[in-house]
Amino acid sequence: MPRLVGIDLGGTSIRAAVATGPTTYADRVVRCLTPAADGPAAVISACAAAARDAAGGTPDGIAIGIPGPLDPVRGVVFAAPHLPGFESLPAREMLSEAAGCPVAIHNDSNLAGYAEWAAGMGRGSRTFVFVIIGTGIGGAVIIDGTLLVGAAGTAAEVGHVPSSSDGPVCGQGHPGCLEGVASGTGIARCAAAALGRGERSRLQGVAPLTASVIAEAARGGDPLAQRVYADAARALGRSFGALINILGPDAIALGGGVGSQADLLEAPIRAAMAEIAFETPLRNCRLGQAKLGSDAGLVGAVAWAVRSFGHQASREAAEAV
Amino acid sequence: MPRLVGIDLGGTSIRAAVATGPTTYADRVVRCLTPAADGPAAVISACAAAARDAAGGTPDGIAIGIPGPLDPVRGVVFAAPHLPGFESLPAREMLSEAAGCPVAIHNDSNLAGYAEWAAGMGRGSRTFVFVIIGTGIGGAVIIDGTLLVGAAGTAAEVGHVPSSSDGPVCGQGHPGCLEGVASGTGIARCAAAALGRGERSRLQGVAPLTASVIAEAARGGDPLAQRVYADAARALGRSFGALINILGPDAIALGGGVGSQADLLEAPIRAAMAEIAFETPLRNCRLGQAKLGSDAGLVGAVAWAVRSFGHQASREAAEAV
Repeated sequence: MPRLVGIDLGGTSIRAAVATGPTTYADRVVRCLTPAADGPAAVISACAAAARDAAGGTPDGIAIGIPGPLDPVRGVVFAAPHLPGFESLPAREMLSEAAGCPVAIHNDSNLAGYAEWAAGMGRGSRTFVFVIIGTGIGGAVIIDGTLLVGAAGTAAEVGHVPSSSDGPVCGQGHPGCLEGVASGTGIARCAAAALGRGERSRLQGVAPLTASVIAEAARGGDPLAQRVYADAARALGRSFGALINILGPDAIALGGGVGSQADLLEAPIRAAMAEIAFETPLRNCRLGQAKLGSDAGLVGAVAWAVRSFGHQASREAAEAV
Repeated sequence: MPRLVGIDLGGTSIRAAVATGPTTYADRVVRCLTPAADGPAAVISACAAAARDAAGGTPDGIAIGIPGPLDPVRGVVFAAPHLPGFESLPAREMLSEAAGCPVAIHNDSNLAGYAEWAAGMGRGSRTFVFVIIGTGIGGAVIIDGTLLVGAAGTAAEVGHVPSSSDGPVCGQGHPGCLEGVASGTGIARCAAAALGRGERSRLQGVAPLTASVIAEAARGGDPLAQRVYADAARALGRSFGALINILGPDAIALGGGVGSQADLLEAPIRAAMAEIAFETPLRNCRLGQAKLGSDAGLVGAVAWAVRSFGHQASREAAEAV
């Protein structure tokens, strides 16, 4: 069995595991803190060490999910907001040199979506959309088993679409963008703005004001919190309607901390999808919760390592016999 | 040379021509009126007659572009607004029986976009988006040479995406939809609404109030006409920004009667794209005018016939020798 390693690189921690099958990994997961402040070389070195530790030696191949826009074909990271210095970084080559094996890099949301397609909510889907809503909104699109990457390698940014002509700015500076009203940050900012205007709410004076605190207030009947979540859900549903019209998916999976608030989001999302989507593709598309939770990133990295290097490693092993 | 025929079926006329190469057709184009009022059987029969006429006998294969949502895989038309009775119609089977040869059906905007990719503005593009703006807004998406159809066959409806949370309804009844402000119909309705509110404009009393009349007024300095076009262009540009984030195209072609008003649209579209699109994929994407004009539908049908049946017809001809 070739030693193929998946790495989930985050702003605060690194997780690595060796594949035991197309979408499974060994019980022993290597975890360490991300030395983000020490710069890219230190981070890459820590990733290589984690991979060697997970594989019990030099791996036969590594796939790594990185939190930022990147080009998986050229192996270059354009930027990673929580990893200082990850700018125009040839991460694939660097990790390949440090670890002594071939490497595939991909955006972390793309790999999480790939995991949901291969082993989660999207199993069997031919055109699959994954939307992960946390601090920001990320996603993945998988068509006939292939991750959509686009000409620049950066596609499937489903959270950055127009929501209103004059709405709030998102985390990337886009005015009236979906992420500005429907991400965790967007929900908190919209609630803070309403509180700042003096609206009555049990949230007055609450700090820190997070999307999950606001969700609890919405469940408790607070009108401001309910309205902020309703606005987020409508914007999400309308954008999902657009994705249905453009891509024609047969499944859309919702993941992430905010995305998993199904009781607050799913019904109004469904209603808003019907505002924009054509009837036939809407009827053909199921919407549901992602299944792998915070494990999706590591499952996706492992699955991508097997997909990228499984055949090659098997062939080399056979030739060596 | 196999006799492969492309048919461009419209609500008022039918055009058919025989292929002379991958994207070219014979000078002799057969034209006839569409007997739309006589129902689907009469329309299909007229298409078969036009195809036989163009081929000078029974064709070896036909591809036909049909103006409505359909499933090219199953060969069924879901609806065609200007062709009464085209509802859940097995058009491929009907035309194949009437013409005595294999048939491929596709949405007319998809085939026009395919033509622009194969022989027009999108030549060499790896991820290509075609947007045709006339009465409504249609489109096509071609990824690595393949038309994106989605799980229900209806994808690439790029005109039906959210534009504003409370904007006008489009021709399909979607509130706040791009088509409601940026199609020819949408532009005319927005201008009529402003005139109805008593706004001063040289367009007061003008009838019929069309997008092209409003375009002329905008060029002449009329503030209302300029604002309506600016609103349309901003909504288009923001939606193109979303397409860049989702699909990562390297080229977007603008076609159709409204889309060809480049002097009024292109600069504000570019500005608005930058409001929403990420920098790397935006830089990687060129925006320009479609090149084939009203010929795109027929070129696309011919090219699709060659693509669908060219190999097969060549093989049969070789086997017959």
